[in-house]
Amino acid sequence: MLILVTYDVSVITSDGRRRLRNIAKTCLDYGIRVQNSVFECEVDPAQFVVLKSTLLDIYNSEEDSLRFYMLGKHGKQKVDHFGAKPVDDPLRDPLII
Amino acid sequence: MLILVTYDVSVITSDGRRRLRNIAKTCLDYGIRVQNSVFECEVDPAQFVVLKSTLLDIYNSEEDSLRFYMLGKHGKQKVDHFGAKPVDDPLRDPLII
Repeated sequence: MLILVTYDVSVITSDGRRRLRNIAKTCLDYGIRVQNSVFECEVDPAQFVVLKSTLLDIYNSEEDSLRFYMLGKHGKQKVDHFGAKPVDDPLRDPLII
Repeated sequence: MLILVTYDVSVITSDGRRRLRNIAKTCLDYGIRVQNSVFECEVDPAQFVVLKSTLLDIYNSEEDSLRFYMLGKHGKQKVDHFGAKPVDDPLRDPLII
């Protein structure tokens, strides 16, 4: 099933930047980055449990926001993309939001 | 039907910041901001045509990225949220990505 992971992570502090890197790295283990803070992950239910649990361990519940969208088995058919491809490293250019 | 709109807009230039404001403003006419660059819009097919067309008029296809996810009639049931609520104005704190 396709899971969309979106997040807002405050990168004002070095701790925030570390969280952002770890969240992105974890998502990349399961899927692809389609925008700076948006990942599409093709996972089975067991993998999703691990992915979700890992992300919830990393993020800061008071400062960050984390959302999961269950797009289902035919999730790729539900997406329309327009424009530029995302940068590889969101910390390279923090002025993209 | 619930449509998820996600975008990356480069805000290095004043033109980029203007685009970001206009994209956010347009999305707010149709839905709610759930993260800085993520909106959930409850629209009918005709409204979606107008929303999409308006956003495609605003964005810069070489610099920005715009994605639409069709979440369907029961889209709200497909979402899990954790952590902080988004800020009202993403330009207030550009270091949230």
